[in-house]
Amino acid sequence: MDKLKVVTIGGGSSYTPELIEGFIKRYEEFPLTELWLVDIEKGREKLEIVGALAKRMVEEANLPIKVVLSYDRREALVDADYVTTQMRIGLLEARIKDERIPLKHGIIGQETNGAGGMFKAFRTIPVILDIVKDIQELCPNAWLINFTNPAGMVTEAVLRYTNFKRVIGLCNVPFGLKHNIATQLDVDMNDVTLEISGVNHHIYVTNAYVKGESVLDKVIEKQIESSEEALQMNNFTAQSYSPSFIKGLGYLPCPYHNYYYFTKEQLETELEEYKEGRVRGEVVKKLEDELFELYKDLELRVKPPQLEKRGGAHYSDAACSLINSIHNNKQDIQYVNVRNNGAISNISSDSAVEIACVITKDGPKPITVGELDPRINGSIQNIKSFERMVCEAAITGNRELAIYALSANPLCPSATIAEVVVDELLEAHKEYLPQFNK
Amino acid sequence: MDKLKVVTIGGGSSYTPELIEGFIKRYEEFPLTELWLVDIEKGREKLEIVGALAKRMVEEANLPIKVVLSYDRREALVDADYVTTQMRIGLLEARIKDERIPLKHGIIGQETNGAGGMFKAFRTIPVILDIVKDIQELCPNAWLINFTNPAGMVTEAVLRYTNFKRVIGLCNVPFGLKHNIATQLDVDMNDVTLEISGVNHHIYVTNAYVKGESVLDKVIEKQIESSEEALQMNNFTAQSYSPSFIKGLGYLPCPYHNYYYFTKEQLETELEEYKEGRVRGEVVKKLEDELFELYKDLELRVKPPQLEKRGGAHYSDAACSLINSIHNNKQDIQYVNVRNNGAISNISSDSAVEIACVITKDGPKPITVGELDPRINGSIQNIKSFERMVCEAAITGNRELAIYALSANPLCPSATIAEVVVDELLEAHKEYLPQFNK
Amino acid sequence: MDKLKVVTIGGGSSYTPELIEGFIKRYEEFPLTELWLVDIEKGREKLEIVGALAKRMVEEANLPIKVVLSYDRREALVDADYVTTQMRIGLLEARIKDERIPLKHGIIGQETNGAGGMFKAFRTIPVILDIVKDIQELCPNAWLINFTNPAGMVTEAVLRYTNFKRVIGLCNVPFGLKHNIATQLDVDMNDVTLEISGVNHHIYVTNAYVKGESVLDKVIEKQIESSEEALQMNNFTAQSYSPSFIKGLGYLPCPYHNYYYFTKEQLETELEEYKEGRVRGEVVKKLEDELFELYKDLELRVKPPQLEKRGGAHYSDAACSLINSIHNNKQDIQYVNVRNNGAISNISSDSAVEIACVITKDGPKPITVGELDPRINGSIQNIKSFERMVCEAAITGNRELAIYALSANPLCPSATIAEVVVDELLEAHKEYLPQFNK
Amino acid sequence: MDKLKVVTIGGGSSYTPELIEGFIKRYEEFPLTELWLVDIEKGREKLEIVGALAKRMVEEANLPIKVVLSYDRREALVDADYVTTQMRIGLLEARIKDERIPLKHGIIGQETNGAGGMFKAFRTIPVILDIVKDIQELCPNAWLINFTNPAGMVTEAVLRYTNFKRVIGLCNVPFGLKHNIATQLDVDMNDVTLEISGVNHHIYVTNAYVKGESVLDKVIEKQIESSEEALQMNNFTAQSYSPSFIKGLGYLPCPYHNYYYFTKEQLETELEEYKEGRVRGEVVKKLEDELFELYKDLELRVKPPQLEKRGGAHYSDAACSLINSIHNNKQDIQYVNVRNNGAISNISSDSAVEIACVITKDGPKPITVGELDPRINGSIQNIKSFERMVCEAAITGNRELAIYALSANPLCPSATIAEVVVDELLEAHKEYLPQFNK
Repeated sequence: MDKLKVVTIGGGSSYTPELIEGFIKRYEEFPLTELWLVDIEKGREKLEIVGALAKRMVEEANLPIKVVLSYDRREALVDADYVTTQMRIGLLEARIKDERIPLKHGIIGQETNGAGGMFKAFRTIPVILDIVKDIQELCPNAWLINFTNPAGMVTEAVLRYTNFKRVIGLCNVPFGLKHNIATQLDVDMNDVTLEISGVNHHIYVTNAYVKGESVLDKVIEKQIESSEEALQMNNFTAQSYSPSFIKGLGYLPCPYHNYYYFTKEQLETELEEYKEGRVRGEVVKKLEDELFELYKDLELRVKPPQLEKRGGAHYSDAACSLINSIHNNKQDIQYVNVRNNGAISNISSDSAVEIACVITKDGPKPITVGELDPRINGSIQNIKSFERMVCEAAITGNRELAIYALSANPLCPSATIAEVVVDELLEAHKEYLPQFNK
Repeated sequence: MDKLKVVTIGGGSSYTPELIEGFIKRYEEFPLTELWLVDIEKGREKLEIVGALAKRMVEEANLPIKVVLSYDRREALVDADYVTTQMRIGLLEARIKDERIPLKHGIIGQETNGAGGMFKAFRTIPVILDIVKDIQELCPNAWLINFTNPAGMVTEAVLRYTNFKRVIGLCNVPFGLKHNIATQLDVDMNDVTLEISGVNHHIYVTNAYVKGESVLDKVIEKQIESSEEALQMNNFTAQSYSPSFIKGLGYLPCPYHNYYYFTKEQLETELEEYKEGRVRGEVVKKLEDELFELYKDLELRVKPPQLEKRGGAHYSDAACSLINSIHNNKQDIQYVNVRNNGAISNISSDSAVEIACVITKDGPKPITVGELDPRINGSIQNIKSFERMVCEAAITGNRELAIYALSANPLCPSATIAEVVVDELLEAHKEYLPQFNK
Repeated sequence: MDKLKVVTIGGGSSYTPELIEGFIKRYEEFPLTELWLVDIEKGREKLEIVGALAKRMVEEANLPIKVVLSYDRREALVDADYVTTQMRIGLLEARIKDERIPLKHGIIGQETNGAGGMFKAFRTIPVILDIVKDIQELCPNAWLINFTNPAGMVTEAVLRYTNFKRVIGLCNVPFGLKHNIATQLDVDMNDVTLEISGVNHHIYVTNAYVKGESVLDKVIEKQIESSEEALQMNNFTAQSYSPSFIKGLGYLPCPYHNYYYFTKEQLETELEEYKEGRVRGEVVKKLEDELFELYKDLELRVKPPQLEKRGGAHYSDAACSLINSIHNNKQDIQYVNVRNNGAISNISSDSAVEIACVITKDGPKPITVGELDPRINGSIQNIKSFERMVCEAAITGNRELAIYALSANPLCPSATIAEVVVDELLEAHKEYLPQFNK
Repeated sequence: MDKLKVVTIGGGSSYTPELIEGFIKRYEEFPLTELWLVDIEKGREKLEIVGALAKRMVEEANLPIKVVLSYDRREALVDADYVTTQMRIGLLEARIKDERIPLKHGIIGQETNGAGGMFKAFRTIPVILDIVKDIQELCPNAWLINFTNPAGMVTEAVLRYTNFKRVIGLCNVPFGLKHNIATQLDVDMNDVTLEISGVNHHIYVTNAYVKGESVLDKVIEKQIESSEEALQMNNFTAQSYSPSFIKGLGYLPCPYHNYYYFTKEQLETELEEYKEGRVRGEVVKKLEDELFELYKDLELRVKPPQLEKRGGAHYSDAACSLINSIHNNKQDIQYVNVRNNGAISNISSDSAVEIACVITKDGPKPITVGELDPRINGSIQNIKSFERMVCEAAITGNRELAIYALSANPLCPSATIAEVVVDELLEAHKEYLPQFNK
């Protein structure tokens, strides 16, 4: 049996059992021999709990997959075939600050493309670039599947600031959209394909097909009838788009667009949560503690159903599916973050975009999108430009650029607030941001 | 002496005396023989006041310029060499609604790229397209110099929805920036040239030169020392950019960027004005009434200095300067709204942009800008996309698109509010919007 | 059983038996109910022979496919699902002139992208545009699969000069390349996919994959070892690329590149053929006569093997395969002529290109190519520009443009010769070129 | 008096007296203090002759310009304000080989974009890159004005393979076109401006203006009446475009287009010259010898009129004019080789193109061209791609790429010949091509 080795960095994550389940389900096609779960010393307790569960799951499935726990990333990476990254620098405590500090000053934190996402990028990008260096040395033919958020910016940073090509950014939002569209139309999810245009957490469904026939009109109609359904996610309350809005747009927005089209309402909700000590990070922390309690139970030998309630549900499953399609050259269509290469004509060829790709053993091949419709071009370009500024600031440690970038962010209504928020977050995350403390 | 005929549509405007002064000043180079001031019947009183002043000014200057007042646009256009448009469909009453109705619902009206600008575009674009039809029939070699706001959208609409090429959109903002930069650096304004990137009322100074040498660093420095000066305009209070913001941006924003980088503060100011019945339109109306009182004075034989306090000051002078440069093939650099034609690589070639052009007898020739820096790309693309949606809705009368477009506008924080505001404005301006009442 | 109707215009072609065989082979997946073979009165004899063979073949296969012979295109098109075009305006006599007249003046005729192709385009494009008009009226949801040469220009003309979107240009060259690569590497052809860049009859294999793994290096190596094999076609003698050439190029050229990289040698060969009365058209005519003799044989109830020796072998099979993939939304990768839409960044979005596409029920979706490598950009752009000029001249009947276009063609070494050749061909084909006789 | 220092590398060139004359004529505007003429030891004799003449010319003009002869490039470059390069690596002997060896094998040598130009680029580019390194160290604010041929490739190489931005490629062809157009139309040359599209020695006049008014139609008409006049140059016999050709093209080609539109005729002429030992290099050598004889005459104190008969006449004058416009921020329009930066949409932004620019103290600012018309796109792209391959091969010493590039060149009708010619030229120029002898 050939060696087939996957390394998961941030292995102590509560999502790991889903990943294990994903590999178990696909074992016949993807005969994994070694799964290395890597974490840092600080995460030892969690990794041990999750690792033990992982081993019980494999045992229960009666499969010859060797699960290895490691605190030495470089040792783990040697000869890896696939590397997945799902770490959270600074843990949930950092996320809670990412959310509470902006809210304290009256703006949404937003852990992906807002102030929170910016600082998550600042903490994460230098680490990812280090990982890439290790991969280039220790397993240069491996594919790096990143699902650490902000996945768009992380992919952008690797593509723009390294010469490593084998990186794919992955998100569960397209998966969710596809799933919900299938449900709404009452068709098999496998028969659905989408045309996706945009960047991570800021995509539009610009066409949808059932068995290859366009059903965009029906999807729009369904969306109008019951506006929230297709856009529902676990991690926030959907706002209700009016029929006029959807007709005017003519496409399907993604759940995260709530932040941009309903900034006011979203902010009000979050301020409420802020006051009550239940911003998303705090909620997630509680959920995680509960999950880890569950995971400790030696009787538990499968992924517990509670995990599916998380915002990141299906992330790991999407990752397994992607890895499987690469490995077996399935040439199916998946929606990932890749180098644009001209697929969207009016976005720089060097930038990361989230679009439909044919997944092959040689990686994802983007299907051409063409020029973006003005209905979606403005907002996509706006977020893409924000991402690029954040990546630059993450690498150079340019505080002024960070302040300017947040001032230009659609969730921030004042340059004055931007400056206060950036400075306060820089201080709060100081230990994780050496690039800003030169 | 050869005939040289200029037709000014919206001749009854309070800005007309500046235009007259501009032609008088340039008479030697630009020997105007006929100036037709055209207005609609409803504007007869104003046109007669302004027209009489115009005649006195010409008389005072002792020049053989024939000033003709006309209420018949087609008669006026015959064989015109230059046509300028400065009309205000629905008069200031309409502008006041454009501002008050959005503010009533807690959003900024903004008469150029916000809800107000959208409705000004809806009222103006069909009229401009009619004028273009007349020009194509009656004076096809004339240049159309439009300074009716929103000048960017009006130019976009002519370029995209007609086959008339000889249109130029004109704005006084670049003139103001150039003037203020010269003042700050204490140099002669004629020695200053700028690199401008963007769309009307949303431009950045991406480079500035004195006698051809780049002084961007100095301009940035001066801006940091005394942040408001270069960005001051008559028509609104400048907010104060922090040094960090300006360093982060690295370019000079334009006065209208206040709306986007200080949305919160701007809104607060305007809500105050709203309550006190002194939104910009109301202030302007008062100013205009005072001006017309002045204009009635038979002793007044020159442009009164009070006119320069208006937001639109220098507009007409900029127009005269542009016309003069075309006429005499001056090949100087001016900043106008023209077909992009690839000058900004990542904006559609067919779109209008506001950039530095060499002004020749064959029209403005854009100087290449290249790909926009992410620092400014997002916001420029956002406004450009908004402009394109507004133009489409102005022509098709698509209410849903108008609602979606306003939802996507950076000044509007909620799709719910967008719908209410659009519907209320559609009702308020019903008589001027036949395209929406099909 | 649902109706499933295919209409083949130019049904009397000698290639039709291959098409019939293709549909018979795929009957289970593609249950064709009606096949209309359409031709003009002048082609009645041939259509009757081929039609009778087609009926015998269907009978032999024992399938319920109705074969209808028709001389009324409009009657045939009603409610068609797929329309294929394989007609030859002016028959082989015209092709012989396309080849002999240029050779008489010392230049290669080249029936696709040379003088011959230009005149074939001039004869064909007006007819195709008429067919498109009929399709838009009588069966607007049908797909038009064109394999009439010059397929690239025909597709370009439909895309650029009509608003019909459902057109696909098809060629057997990519099929041949794929087949030969599979043979060289001794792998199953179904495991091979290619990255193709270019325009019809002017493509390069810029990557090749076996089961998704890039084997470009191996293909290049094999090509160097045995230079002609992968580039062999039935219809002309392959020249032998040197190892240095292939290493310098780094990609695989297509068989038609012989004309451009070995113009001198190719011309010498053709001048020989010209003198001996066996230019390709003459050879084909002889082959065709022999085929029709065979087809008359009432005992013949299958496609005769002799047909495979033709240059166009596999054309019809490629067409059946394409139609089948559309019909069944196979999402496999095929190589067709489609609207570029930005897939190749430096070719106009509106132009036809020949590239790898995912074939879906909604048509082919191009896989992004990006910017062309300078190694291939020059020659591809050169032919693409030639194609566009020819399309324009075909529609406007602009003789001067035809002369200029041929002067700019890489096969024509002198503008003086170009003018003589164009004028002589215009005269020779006068009856088929009403657009030039205005 | 401020220091104003120009360094001319290849100072011993026979063109130098024109340069001296140019600086003398412009002394009032451009008060040159030091002119360093630099050459290599091998060129000592020539430099001494030319240098002495230069000193006599300055003396005659009674100007305080210090003329310094130097064989130490680095010493000369210290604190230079402008550096011009006009050297010929391998002298005219090398050019003669560039021409004779290809002709021996039946192809045109063509010293700019053919086999000859390729090898001139191979000899020159490494030297230019060394000069750029010295400039970056010793006078980083200097402008490098290159008129060493092939000027397009040299500029491309500096722009693409160094980070030095202050380079401008200069050619006398646009000057000649402008001059001839003025003559044909009988207008003052200063009133003429052109729209130029293309790359060095491969440009088209896509519009022409007299005092800003388009006169393209007239220029085309004149060209038709008397086809050779506007395209006449000293260095080769103009072929005669037919009226149909010019109407079909719709623009004005440049003199070098003879090679491409009349390859056959041009080749015949050159083969004649080859046989008679008077290929262009040989003719030039004789002319040069005569010029140097003239220069030796101590009575000669001005530029001798014989110099104007050279193909490169006006080159140096164009250079002085360019330097003067930069120095004095004239903002006039000149035609130079610069980074495209999107000016021509379908050519890579990073490539050098030859287009109309506004000349400022901050360098040339390209006027936007837009997308190239198919009439000219193919041939321009073809040469541009050839240039890029040659630059790459010049730097990497990739023999196979050189062979492929020549095979793809429009002047070379056979890959077989290309290989022989490249190998023979590599051998002939061995001493100047260390990059190929690794």
